Amino acid sequence: MNLDTIFSAAQEAFLSYKNLSGSKKADFLEKIAETLEENRKAIVLMACRESNLPEGRINGELGRTTGQIKLFANQVREGSWLEATIDPADPHRSPLPKSDIRRMLTPLGPVVVFGASNFPLAFSTAGGDTISALAAGCPVVYKGHPAHPDTSKFIGECISQAVEKSGLPAGVFTHVVGGVKMGQDLVKHPAAKAVGFTGSYGAGKSLFNIASDRDEPIPVYAEMGSVNPIFTFQERMTNELVPLAESFVGSLTLGSGQFCTNPGLIFVPRALAENFENAVSEAIKKAPDSPMLHEGIAESYYTALDNLKTRSELNWVKVPNAKHLINVSPALAEIKASDWIADDLFQQEVFGSFALMVVYENEAELLEVAKKLHGQLTITLWADKSELKSNEELINILEEKCGRLLFSGVPTGVEVGYAMQHGGPFPSTTDVRSTSVGAHAIKRFARPIAFQDMPEELLPEALKNGNPLGIMRQVNGKFTSEKI
Amino acid sequence: MNLDTIFSAAQEAFLSYKNLSGSKKADFLEKIAETLEENRKAIVLMACRESNLPEGRINGELGRTTGQIKLFANQVREGSWLEATIDPADPHRSPLPKSDIRRMLTPLGPVVVFGASNFPLAFSTAGGDTISALAAGCPVVYKGHPAHPDTSKFIGECISQAVEKSGLPAGVFTHVVGGVKMGQDLVKHPAAKAVGFTGSYGAGKSLFNIASDRDEPIPVYAEMGSVNPIFTFQERMTNELVPLAESFVGSLTLGSGQFCTNPGLIFVPRALAENFENAVSEAIKKAPDSPMLHEGIAESYYTALDNLKTRSELNWVKVPNAKHLINVSPALAEIKASDWIADDLFQQEVFGSFALMVVYENEAELLEVAKKLHGQLTITLWADKSELKSNEELINILEEKCGRLLFSGVPTGVEVGYAMQHGGPFPSTTDVRSTSVGAHAIKRFARPIAFQDMPEELLPEALKNGNPLGIMRQVNGKFTSEKI
Repeated sequence: MNLDTIFSAAQEAFLSYKNLSGSKKADFLEKIAETLEENRKAIVLMACRESNLPEGRINGELGRTTGQIKLFANQVREGSWLEATIDPADPHRSPLPKSDIRRMLTPLGPVVVFGASNFPLAFSTAGGDTISALAAGCPVVYKGHPAHPDTSKFIGECISQAVEKSGLPAGVFTHVVGGVKMGQDLVKHPAAKAVGFTGSYGAGKSLFNIASDRDEPIPVYAEMGSVNPIFTFQERMTNELVPLAESFVGSLTLGSGQFCTNPGLIFVPRALAENFENAVSEAIKKAPDSPMLHEGIAESYYTALDNLKTRSELNWVKVPNAKHLINVSPALAEIKASDWIADDLFQQEVFGSFALMVVYENEAELLEVAKKLHGQLTITLWADKSELKSNEELINILEEKCGRLLFSGVPTGVEVGYAMQHGGPFPSTTDVRSTSVGAHAIKRFARPIAFQDMPEELLPEALKNGNPLGIMRQVNGKFTSEKI
Repeated sequence: MNLDTIFSAAQEAFLSYKNLSGSKKADFLEKIAETLEENRKAIVLMACRESNLPEGRINGELGRTTGQIKLFANQVREGSWLEATIDPADPHRSPLPKSDIRRMLTPLGPVVVFGASNFPLAFSTAGGDTISALAAGCPVVYKGHPAHPDTSKFIGECISQAVEKSGLPAGVFTHVVGGVKMGQDLVKHPAAKAVGFTGSYGAGKSLFNIASDRDEPIPVYAEMGSVNPIFTFQERMTNELVPLAESFVGSLTLGSGQFCTNPGLIFVPRALAENFENAVSEAIKKAPDSPMLHEGIAESYYTALDNLKTRSELNWVKVPNAKHLINVSPALAEIKASDWIADDLFQQEVFGSFALMVVYENEAELLEVAKKLHGQLTITLWADKSELKSNEELINILEEKCGRLLFSGVPTGVEVGYAMQHGGPFPSTTDVRSTSVGAHAIKRFARPIAFQDMPEELLPEALKNGNPLGIMRQVNGKFTSEKI
């Protein structure tokens, strides 16, 4: 099928699908979740085989995938996400009567989605991007990830079954396969109105450039990962050195270090550096080498480490075991904060279980670090209350450098909920205004529209006087779920 | 002052200004409005002289300017715009305890604003872009418009006075002057985090390109105008032919045709074309030639008409009077819908009181028109209820082509309120997800941030358990203004 045919079906489908009620959209999304659950065994088998990820993880990821589908289903069934805003008419206003103006969100149009290799389910074919776009009312053209082609195709078929069972036009979801050129052509197609992407900086930024260079530029929501720094402080660390070291190594090596929130950078005060290093070293020895998603990723990991090994600023706490075709071998190197500050290269993500431990002399040095730091998905602070208090200036700057700021725990384990923000300043994403996880992700695929003096019978349900959906609306600036 | 100095002051100011309470930000904004009112006489005198706009209009525009300042002040004092979203912890969740996650909007950072020549007050120095950015918590670096340099400089001084009186750092607002190169350098500066612009397609698109090509791409909210088509239908027109013709001409010639919502395109059914043409012709004759903002704009107007005059598809209903140095002379040409469809050139905006009247044979032809139509700020329908009913397919497509759909009245006269949407699909703006008028405009300059397990005493007011601001929040997915 050529792209014109695909997008023309998607555009045609859009014109009816966008008008489907929230409740029917929710039924459809739940039908997708149901179809995935019915095929759980086959999916898990396929995804394990293609991703090298263990069955427990893939089973869990499928649960997460259907869980987030249900979250979006609930959200569109409830309906308040539409941001209905009503300024009623005032025919008696002087000098000029005031028109009736009603505003709500409406879907953007067909969306192109690229899945991630590191989440063959939750960030792939039926993952957050696809589902939030469908929830918003946008048809999706999905490009299968070459790292898990069978899983992607099979899940694509599950979605298409749900489309059919729900009596929707087939163009609501299309699964395509192809190489880099195909990806570029999808983004270039005039009918595409937005792009969702999770993956490497190189690929994400190149899609952003293509989308910006179109005759009609379109938004690209590329989540490109980051090094997710952890800032540690004397008191807190002294009290919990070993458990924090173990948490850190646990997070670093989880899923072979292949999470976008993997902590690749940890700042440690000089006085504790040796003790922490020892504790980490103990923990890291217990972490076995483990398989990565595919050979290409393993190859990149070892190449990146080979490059770093040439740098005299680094002191290796744990060198990786001999290069392996597919397994990642956790590694850790130490560097002084002043050296880290001097070269942006030390901010580059190494995909896998590698971290830089940056030893700082004093808290003033951390201000320099913070100003220099690139945009991150997350930043974590391990500090006690008095340390938080005395580092307000630092925290104030760190807020500008991330999408999520953690005060305990580790950055891996991204909760799917209403308040989650999974996105951050460039280069962690191409659009700092967006999240790719959680309920707010739906807003990436919508835009506002206002209706002026629209007859009541034509108004969308969300904007009718009687508020038949019972949603939260802003009427004359006040939030209310009452009718007008 | 060089740009590094300016932006370093803006960035420094940002780190404190962003943390100012909503109520103090509101006081500051109101201080700006107050300072403008105190200087009303001087401002009106200057703006009239520099814009050629009549005193009544400029007086009204100043009222609109201070009115919208008060709208944003109210909005930030109230605080619900922050979209506070709270997912409380659940330490007992199995298999893993759930962290406390709280999300809200936070300002982007220093914003570069370019004013519009056609609104020397409401879309310029203290206009909607500047004020919504300040309201969001972003310092503004404003480039004065060369068409009204004295007005811009003077209003810049009023804002700086308000900054000083409010005890804020001077870097919260900086007024700069310069040419095209200066504008480009502002957008290129690494400390700039967003751009607001109102003006021509050429200038807006070029700023968008520069911003997208930066090492760190930033959002550009360029409102570049459109031709704001009016679609008319047989029954409605038959009943109200003369008043509608007069409304149309009134809107077309208002402010010398220099509004971004000026109706430059009107679709009329064949059966009524002659009658409507006569009525418009009568009305247009009564509309006097009137001064444009400056000679360059007048020159462009006549040049555009000279180009159109070479087109054999056009039938001139009213040719402009002889070219004038500064006055616009209203003009109207007729074209068949099939000819209009055949050439995109007929969709180009002619800034000033010129419209194309497109005569269509039947409503099926309008579907072709709609599919072909570029993105617009507004689209207006003059149809009776039965005509709206029988044109649902058309309306469904037109929704995809505009930011505001009107069912009575004319597109000029953009209401400043909560529900206004002034923005639309490309090329009317560079970001269809945004509005440059109304309360929602503030969201252009904010991004979400999530705090995970942040100690209560560090949480921003908007996210504290007790809800001290009394704002509407989403807690566990439910909207509430209660405390937790």
